[in-house]
Amino acid sequence: MKKIINKPDDVVVEMLKGLALSRPDSIGLIPEKRVVYRKDPYLNKVAIISGSGSGHEPDQAFYVGKGMLDAACAGPVFAAPTLDAIVDAAKLVDRGRGVLFLVKNYTGDRANFEMASEMLEFEGGPAVDTAIINDDVAVKDSTFTAGRRGVAGAIFVYKIIGAKSEEEGVNLPQLKKFAMEVNDNIRTMGFALKSCTTPAKGSTTFDLGEDEIELGVGLHGEPGRERTKYKPANEVIKIITDSVIEDLPFICGDEVALLINGLGGTPIGELYIAAGIVHEILRNRKLKVFRTYVNNFCTSLDMEGCSVSLLRLNEEFKRLLLAPADIPIKYF
Amino acid sequence: MKKIINKPDDVVVEMLKGLALSRPDSIGLIPEKRVVYRKDPYLNKVAIISGSGSGHEPDQAFYVGKGMLDAACAGPVFAAPTLDAIVDAAKLVDRGRGVLFLVKNYTGDRANFEMASEMLEFEGGPAVDTAIINDDVAVKDSTFTAGRRGVAGAIFVYKIIGAKSEEEGVNLPQLKKFAMEVNDNIRTMGFALKSCTTPAKGSTTFDLGEDEIELGVGLHGEPGRERTKYKPANEVIKIITDSVIEDLPFICGDEVALLINGLGGTPIGELYIAAGIVHEILRNRKLKVFRTYVNNFCTSLDMEGCSVSLLRLNEEFKRLLLAPADIPIKYF
Repeated sequence: MKKIINKPDDVVVEMLKGLALSRPDSIGLIPEKRVVYRKDPYLNKVAIISGSGSGHEPDQAFYVGKGMLDAACAGPVFAAPTLDAIVDAAKLVDRGRGVLFLVKNYTGDRANFEMASEMLEFEGGPAVDTAIINDDVAVKDSTFTAGRRGVAGAIFVYKIIGAKSEEEGVNLPQLKKFAMEVNDNIRTMGFALKSCTTPAKGSTTFDLGEDEIELGVGLHGEPGRERTKYKPANEVIKIITDSVIEDLPFICGDEVALLINGLGGTPIGELYIAAGIVHEILRNRKLKVFRTYVNNFCTSLDMEGCSVSLLRLNEEFKRLLLAPADIPIKYF
Repeated sequence: MKKIINKPDDVVVEMLKGLALSRPDSIGLIPEKRVVYRKDPYLNKVAIISGSGSGHEPDQAFYVGKGMLDAACAGPVFAAPTLDAIVDAAKLVDRGRGVLFLVKNYTGDRANFEMASEMLEFEGGPAVDTAIINDDVAVKDSTFTAGRRGVAGAIFVYKIIGAKSEEEGVNLPQLKKFAMEVNDNIRTMGFALKSCTTPAKGSTTFDLGEDEIELGVGLHGEPGRERTKYKPANEVIKIITDSVIEDLPFICGDEVALLINGLGGTPIGELYIAAGIVHEILRNRKLKVFRTYVNNFCTSLDMEGCSVSLLRLNEEFKRLLLAPADIPIKYF
C-alpha cells in the first residue's frame, strides 16, 4: 500500500487538521473528537449536523460552512462517529433552535445518532431530531444496512437543507419534514471498477477481477446488485441511469438536478464522459436537466467508479440549490 | 484497463461534450477542433487562451469562464493541440484587443502555439502573444521539455491573469508582462506513488515498484529527480516542500498562496494530510499562508501522488486571486 499518509491510525485526525489549517477563519476542529464546526458567526438558526465514518471525503467535514452543515462528526475510516462526539457537536452548534441530524442509512451511524439523541434528551437539551437519507436504489438491504443505503445523493440534502436552515423562522420540525421530502425525491446508483484500499488493512476491501465490475456497489465496497463483466461507458452508465430513473420513477417532463459522483480514484475526465452519456439518456426520456454537478462528492477512499444521482425538482428546491454556500472545498 | 470510457480515440471529445452539456449556458464546444470557449457575453478585453494535451483535467477546458480563460485548446491525450485549433480559437475569442496564449513549457505545445502565432500574423490578425509557464523545480530539462516544465502552478497564472484581463484598459503587452511576473513567483514540485494508464496504450506509462516513488515526476510520467523508496507523508512532503521553498527562495516573512494538487487518482483526504504537513513546514519557516487551495487542479489521468505549489504574493496578486471566477468545475 502506497498512500500519502503517516500512521494508519492518524489518517483521520491529520486530514481534519489539514482542513482546519487550510481554512483557519471558517473551520474549527476538536481533534480528539474528530468534530469539525463552523467558526464564523451565524444566525439564530436550526443547526445542521451530519456524520459518518471517514473515507468518504469531501463528505462530510468539507461541507461545513454557511449554507450547508454547521458541524460534521467524523468516525474512524468506515466506522461510525462516537456517541460523545455527536453529543458534544450538538451542544456546540445549537443556537437555541435545536439541531437536525442528517444521517445516511447505515446501522452503526443510526445507532450512535439515536443514542446521542437519547442522551441529549436525558440531559435536557438541546432539542434534536434526525432525518435519514436512503437514496441508493441498488439493493434492499446490505452488509451494513437494513433498508436502502444512503449514498451520494445525500449531498443534495445537505445543500438544500443547509440553505433552508439559513432562512428566517424555519423551525426543527419543519426542517426535518423538508429534509425527508428532499430525500424522497432523490435516487442514486453507482458501480465500481476497482475496490478501495483501507489504510488500516493495507489491502483491497473486496476483489474484482481484471474484467469485472460491481454494479450497485456500496460506499464501503458492500456487494451491489450484480458482479458482471466490464462494459464500455455507454453500457454501464445506461444500466445505472435507467435503474435510477425507473425507481422513483422520474417521468417525461420532470425537471431534475444531476449529480455524477466519483468514488475517489477515478479522474474527473472520465466523470464528464459519464455526464455526457447521462445527458443523452435524460434528453431521450424528456427529463429536463436544471443543473449538473460533476465531481468527487462522496467517495470510498481510492475506489474507482462513479454513481449517478437524480433529484426531482420543484421551485423551492431549485432556489435552495442555487443559494450560495461557503464551504472549504472549492476551486476558486 | 478498466475506465469509464468507450473507444480510446473518442475519450477527449466525449469528455468535452459532457462538459458542454453540463454547462450549456456558459460553455461552447467545437468538437472537431476540441476547442472549448466562453459563450457568455464578455467585455472588450484581451482574450486568454491556454492549451495542452488532454489527460490533465480539469486543466484547462474546465477553467474556461468569466475571470479565467476565454478558450482552451485540448490536444489528444498527452499530445499538443493542433495548429488549426489554436488559430480558430484565437479568431473566435478575439474582441479586437488581441489574445494572450498561456502555455506550459513543453516542446510540442510551444511549437504549435508559435506556429499558430506566425500563421495569425501572416493572415493579418488577431494580435497574439505568448507567456510561457515553467514552475516545476524538479529538473532542468526533461523528456518533452527544454528548460523547466510547466505544471500545476499554471493554475495560479490562469486565475490571476484571467482576473486581470477583465479589468478595464489592460492591453496585451501589459498582460504578457504581468503573466511572466506571476510565473516568476511560482514554484512547484510533485511526486508519484503510481503511474497513470493512458487509454490508447491501456497500460502504465512507467513502472514503479511496490515500494518505490518518483520524486519530481512530470505530468506525463517523465522521470523526475530521483526514484526512491516509499516514505511516509511527513518525509516525502517535506522533501518536495523544501525543494520548492529553497528554489525561489521563499524567505521568512513572505506571504504565499499554497496549492496542493492531486495527480488524479489520489483521494482528497490524502491531499489534506499533505496540506497539513505543508502548513507546519511553512509556519516553521515563518512563511505566511494567505490562502490554501487543495484539489485536483492539473492531473495526469489516474496517476497517484500530488504536487506542492507556492506563489509569492503581493497586494495585486492577492486581490486578483480572490476575484470571482465563474468556471464550470465547482462544487456549489
